[in-house]
Amino acid sequence: MARHIPHLYLASPWHEDRIDLNADARQHLEKVLRMQAPAPVTYTDGAGLVGEGIFEGRFILRGAEEKLKRVGALTVAVAPPKNKSRLRFVVEKLAEVGVERLVWLSTRHTEGKPPSHEKATAWADAALEQSRGAWRIEIVGPVSVEEIAEFGDLVIGDPGGGAVRGLQRGTDLVLCIGPEGGFADDEIPDGVTRVSFGPTVLRVETAAVVGAALLIDRSED
Amino acid sequence: MARHIPHLYLASPWHEDRIDLNADARQHLEKVLRMQAPAPVTYTDGAGLVGEGIFEGRFILRGAEEKLKRVGALTVAVAPPKNKSRLRFVVEKLAEVGVERLVWLSTRHTEGKPPSHEKATAWADAALEQSRGAWRIEIVGPVSVEEIAEFGDLVIGDPGGGAVRGLQRGTDLVLCIGPEGGFADDEIPDGVTRVSFGPTVLRVETAAVVGAALLIDRSED
Repeated sequence: MARHIPHLYLASPWHEDRIDLNADARQHLEKVLRMQAPAPVTYTDGAGLVGEGIFEGRFILRGAEEKLKRVGALTVAVAPPKNKSRLRFVVEKLAEVGVERLVWLSTRHTEGKPPSHEKATAWADAALEQSRGAWRIEIVGPVSVEEIAEFGDLVIGDPGGGAVRGLQRGTDLVLCIGPEGGFADDEIPDGVTRVSFGPTVLRVETAAVVGAALLIDRSED
Repeated sequence: MARHIPHLYLASPWHEDRIDLNADARQHLEKVLRMQAPAPVTYTDGAGLVGEGIFEGRFILRGAEEKLKRVGALTVAVAPPKNKSRLRFVVEKLAEVGVERLVWLSTRHTEGKPPSHEKATAWADAALEQSRGAWRIEIVGPVSVEEIAEFGDLVIGDPGGGAVRGLQRGTDLVLCIGPEGGFADDEIPDGVTRVSFGPTVLRVETAAVVGAALLIDRSED
């Protein structure tokens, strides 16, 4: 089964017929995944290209490749939760479900701090490989609520909001998830769309992931 | 805002006008939530009844109450992941999004062990309060793949399956999430419905939660 073949995100130099592996990447394959060359792998450049190749020790031999087309573009802006494992969860799961961009949102009641960019990227890249994805998630911020509208049409996650299926299609959406205490009353401009993700009040990290999955599902209709 | 008022799951004795608090529950309110009687709370019996009351120290004074109607019945059967934080995540998030029943699934390739019932219940009850829910999730198992069909119509989470929106409505569904290595080839009867939750391959805990959220959203159409 294809899911047992390792899927690799390769940032290292790509040549016409092969992709070099640095010492870390090779060690990961041989020590952690216990691969012995030659062995089949799939790989991605994190920018939509996926291929089937052969692990040859110091490099991957390139095989059949395909450039995928992106389905919709979704940005999720999240006020970072305070708890470290919930923070990691946000990064890992948004990368896993295929969100295009994660923006750390700076709000008046934000409790947590974003992880370092290096740490967040490592979590996201592991999730990219695990989920056999083709695109690296872009991670930016912190960005203020005032600036977030530059990324697309705002949609606020709100237990009192409307259903996701009522949203207009075909636009670049920015799903905004506020802190546990909520946005301040005057923090969100009047008239911005508010959506609910079910009958319960979700935690920040759950709302981010469940909201993203519902919006992605809808964009694929 | 209502979300700042503590929401309590109260298993203790209910009287006509008040609900007694045991020492643990009272300590939680006074020490952890730093409440001083009298103070407003909302509460649930975990079986669909929710109310607005007053914390009075040794008891909750009952106020306006409402018996909610359940929207759809969803069972999620999950092969327990090996990693403890992912295991906890499954319990907590399924309770949070409002799944009716979590069944630990015993499969040929299952890697992890279910948490103790006591531990799982504690995680779930905290999530019930956090999400301001009205129903306790029922946690059962482990149950074999052969026995799981007794709980309702099976739907297998499978990256190669169809879309959730293609599912028939109005039935009691059992969403089955296999282990990381997948179900064995002959483990699932032919003809069982298979659904995918987006373009990527999701981890066990992600598939469980995202799948549940998509099925609940669909049942509310």
